[in-house]
Amino acid sequence: MEILYGFNPIIEALDAGVREFKEIIISRERYDEILYRARGIPIVRASSKDLDRISDTRSHQGVVARVSPYAYAGLEDVAATGVVLVADTVEDPQNLGSMVRSAYALAGSGIVIAERRCASITPAVVKASAGATEHARIAKVKNLARAMDKLKEWGFWLVGLDASVDTTIQEVPTLEKIAIVIGGEAAGLRPRVMKKLDVVVSIPMRRRFNSLNVSHSAAIGLYELVVRRKGE
Amino acid sequence: MEILYGFNPIIEALDAGVREFKEIIISRERYDEILYRARGIPIVRASSKDLDRISDTRSHQGVVARVSPYAYAGLEDVAATGVVLVADTVEDPQNLGSMVRSAYALAGSGIVIAERRCASITPAVVKASAGATEHARIAKVKNLARAMDKLKEWGFWLVGLDASVDTTIQEVPTLEKIAIVIGGEAAGLRPRVMKKLDVVVSIPMRRRFNSLNVSHSAAIGLYELVVRRKGE
Repeated sequence: MEILYGFNPIIEALDAGVREFKEIIISRERYDEILYRARGIPIVRASSKDLDRISDTRSHQGVVARVSPYAYAGLEDVAATGVVLVADTVEDPQNLGSMVRSAYALAGSGIVIAERRCASITPAVVKASAGATEHARIAKVKNLARAMDKLKEWGFWLVGLDASVDTTIQEVPTLEKIAIVIGGEAAGLRPRVMKKLDVVVSIPMRRRFNSLNVSHSAAIGLYELVVRRKGE
Repeated sequence: MEILYGFNPIIEALDAGVREFKEIIISRERYDEILYRARGIPIVRASSKDLDRISDTRSHQGVVARVSPYAYAGLEDVAATGVVLVADTVEDPQNLGSMVRSAYALAGSGIVIAERRCASITPAVVKASAGATEHARIAKVKNLARAMDKLKEWGFWLVGLDASVDTTIQEVPTLEKIAIVIGGEAAGLRPRVMKKLDVVVSIPMRRRFNSLNVSHSAAIGLYELVVRRKGE
């Protein structure tokens, strides 16, 4: 069992209908939207302090739920979305959650994360994604390089984002099936991931200031390569 | 005096040369880059626990500094950058910091924040910006509506982002001087701000999922309206 916390995560998990809810624990009165969706699920009242303890955070917004663990998708299900975001070594839960939110909202994109060296879909990631994890297809793979080979086999173009190259994202042609590959906060794309890519491009910037946060790079990548191109 | 914490904030503040440094306190050995830049500034060694207490956070990465308060810019100095990001009621320090980082890196943009109903440039915001606050011009204004009038007088077009409208950001023509206006996490753009805008547009999305995080909307707005247009 996992402890989800926060308003959006619990609403979205209820709407998605994938997780099993064992119980919902509420400290505030005003959660009608949750109650309407919670038919058949035991609802318990507790103090805000109790929720701090149960969720091990103070960011619960007055509601937590005991639910079944996150259900990862298979790589094929992720590929079926037609747009994939591959996170190489994104370690910060806030960044991973933000990436899932943007990827899902902007492009209906599936996400591939590495089993090691990448954050898992923990309740903190669910919270940071505003619950988008509950709708998005996310695969967790043992071997990222092998997953990238599979995506290529299935007709995907692998486009890496890296602030250090001169070719810009605007030079990438419109691609039918695209996988955008993002490196981690610290080291960027690892060499073994880099060499699987079809093309590596950067986001043009006016100031070479320490580049962008990974989740913001991912959002701009998805916007430019998927949303904008397909909107034309 | 303020307590800056974290590697990037302190490096960038040293490079920018705007803040007065009273002392730098380090718990780790490996901060050569800070030592090289710290000529004439007293350097003190302390335990990591001491830094927890001094900075009131555990996110200090082994370095804190006592410095003069953040130096806000005047509205005219912000306008001189030619691109302005106006944050209406962005309350989360993480979001405000991310916005400053993207705005500065992508577009060399100045930033306007409201004195009330918006986070100030606290050390937490500096940290979330990776130190971009130290280079960016940021004005804090009493009356946001009046600041918007001033920007109009000076030839700026005021473009608001709001997920609820049908006109998309791609329909905005290339504008010479642009101010992108972003609403807060909870309520979006306030009516009194909304009515000052020249145009309100949305970022096209495949899923109407709870829209994007404000800092990701701001990054895409700056990318589409400033970086991409001016690169063509």
